[in-house]
Amino acid sequence: MATVSKIIPVILSGGGGTRLWPLSTPERPKQFLALTGDQTMFQMTVARVADQTRFAPPIIVANVTHAKMVERQLADVGMDAGALLLEPCARNTAPAIALAALTAGAADAPLLVMPSDHVIADLDAFQRAIDAAMPAVTEGWLVTFGITPTGPETGYGYIEVGEVLGDGLQRVSRFVEKPDQINAARMVADGNHVWNGGIFLFRADAYLAALAAYAPGILSAAKLALKNAQFEGAIVTPDAVSFGESPSDSIDYAVMEKSDRVAVAPVSMGWSDVGSWDALYDLSIKDADGNFCLGDVVQTQCENNMIRGAGLRISIAGAKNLIVIAHGNEVLILPRGQSQNVKALLALHDGDEKKV
Amino acid sequence: MATVSKIIPVILSGGGGTRLWPLSTPERPKQFLALTGDQTMFQMTVARVADQTRFAPPIIVANVTHAKMVERQLADVGMDAGALLLEPCARNTAPAIALAALTAGAADAPLLVMPSDHVIADLDAFQRAIDAAMPAVTEGWLVTFGITPTGPETGYGYIEVGEVLGDGLQRVSRFVEKPDQINAARMVADGNHVWNGGIFLFRADAYLAALAAYAPGILSAAKLALKNAQFEGAIVTPDAVSFGESPSDSIDYAVMEKSDRVAVAPVSMGWSDVGSWDALYDLSIKDADGNFCLGDVVQTQCENNMIRGAGLRISIAGAKNLIVIAHGNEVLILPRGQSQNVKALLALHDGDEKKV
Repeated sequence: MATVSKIIPVILSGGGGTRLWPLSTPERPKQFLALTGDQTMFQMTVARVADQTRFAPPIIVANVTHAKMVERQLADVGMDAGALLLEPCARNTAPAIALAALTAGAADAPLLVMPSDHVIADLDAFQRAIDAAMPAVTEGWLVTFGITPTGPETGYGYIEVGEVLGDGLQRVSRFVEKPDQINAARMVADGNHVWNGGIFLFRADAYLAALAAYAPGILSAAKLALKNAQFEGAIVTPDAVSFGESPSDSIDYAVMEKSDRVAVAPVSMGWSDVGSWDALYDLSIKDADGNFCLGDVVQTQCENNMIRGAGLRISIAGAKNLIVIAHGNEVLILPRGQSQNVKALLALHDGDEKKV
Repeated sequence: MATVSKIIPVILSGGGGTRLWPLSTPERPKQFLALTGDQTMFQMTVARVADQTRFAPPIIVANVTHAKMVERQLADVGMDAGALLLEPCARNTAPAIALAALTAGAADAPLLVMPSDHVIADLDAFQRAIDAAMPAVTEGWLVTFGITPTGPETGYGYIEVGEVLGDGLQRVSRFVEKPDQINAARMVADGNHVWNGGIFLFRADAYLAALAAYAPGILSAAKLALKNAQFEGAIVTPDAVSFGESPSDSIDYAVMEKSDRVAVAPVSMGWSDVGSWDALYDLSIKDADGNFCLGDVVQTQCENNMIRGAGLRISIAGAKNLIVIAHGNEVLILPRGQSQNVKALLALHDGDEKKV
């Protein structure tokens, strides 16, 4: 049996989501916030692959505007990046991973691609799923990790699992777009579907070959952007014009849904994408009355609320099932279960600002 | 019939209530806030007695720390005070009114004593009640205005009305302390009780005579404080040591409940003491969804809330029946109907501050 080379983690930190506004902002998106503990989501992601017996130093892909924040947050936890790729603009995940695969060095290096803003509570389960995937990865399969559903969520894509390829690994039968409630419930009930968690494992050359076959424009743009890149130690700044000309597409659309050597490792590992304030409330450790309070909060007779104050003092009495987030000069208030309304509120803000 | 001298309004502005925190603070209590319109409660009170054919310039009693605010708010509405009495410390209403009565000039001048933080929507009804009271006032009676109850409120004192003394005027049969819910309901149902609104009409000499009989310590302290006062135009600053030695008591306890020449003019005049955020919500003009929003508020799908932002932006979606008040670095959140909890929250703040 050949020596298996170390896995190279590829940490995708280019996102700028606003679902956790007002904490998450374009200047400091979710992955760079300490939402579930003392460390930021990014730092927790890096720590997840700190075992040097298994993992090489990570390749980090981030937006160029967040370069200093990435470096500071790495330094805070005493980690070094193998490479820090600074995207001059956002082109979704397929081009970002292309940059990483082209930077990886060894063509057969297995890349573990992970968003930097997910929670994985059960690391042992994750490791076992990685182990289950490795034989197929070595043979050139593209592997995605399929999260065992805990409910009929409509906010995720689903994967229908097919033929068993090995212990803990199955062929992907079909990718399913974010479903409606009825279809979500049906898929969860049939036991044959998992959530698409956006975590992948494959050889660098397998991904690049798939890009060449299914998304050659992305591959050529990434190559040109790296050819004309600036290099400064571990920091790589791809050429903005070349990278900007790349099609913008997700790895799912560009590659995974098209290749026929795509497998899924189903795993139950306490995963969450912390995609809303409600999701964060669910993850938080509450007091006996079901409240999660952080910061300058004064409360009495409150039940089942999430109340986070930063810079402002929140005084709240008799409230039930509320989400209250204060940050800077912004105060967000939602009933629990309605945190998807953040988007509508932000759209109203944009309206305000256009009027000014 | 003798010429009736003009009524001298006595406006009591010494209160420092905290029930409308965080807008109301010791530095800027409720009466100096614009809560129901463009004018402050104090300015609306002054405007209520602006008719110079009926009223002399008002005597204003305020805490010395609010002197500049009183002068500025008077100037804003183009009003002059007949006298501005600056209390060096708070000694409740009986000593404050003693200062005013001793300053009034003519001994037989009728004094209309009014808190500066009440709403009176129906001024004609108030004027008619004043007219109804005047004959008894001229004869030396102490008259209080009794608010026709609109519900079994437990936050007010009640007055049991007795023998009819004239058109719209009855002898006070009994003062009743703030009742419990059952007694409040009983009193409202029997139609024989009115709320004690804290508005009074009497001759200066009648009040001073009652003080001499029932609260001589208050009278002598007020006299000494004025004897040693500083005078500067209309501004009178009573001597702090003398005034500080006065017993602290309300006009109700010190005089009204003891004198036997006490009458009540029952009146329904759209009165409110705006004693809570709930009371203010009730007074506010709401939109079609029952919301009252003021300041930098961005909302969608909200119903029956009062949301006031000052300096902070409040973004709120899907909320029902909430009171949200942002001011400076403070955010207050309460379900409607629970605004009495402001006191409990403030007590928790005090606890915090003691710990520091």
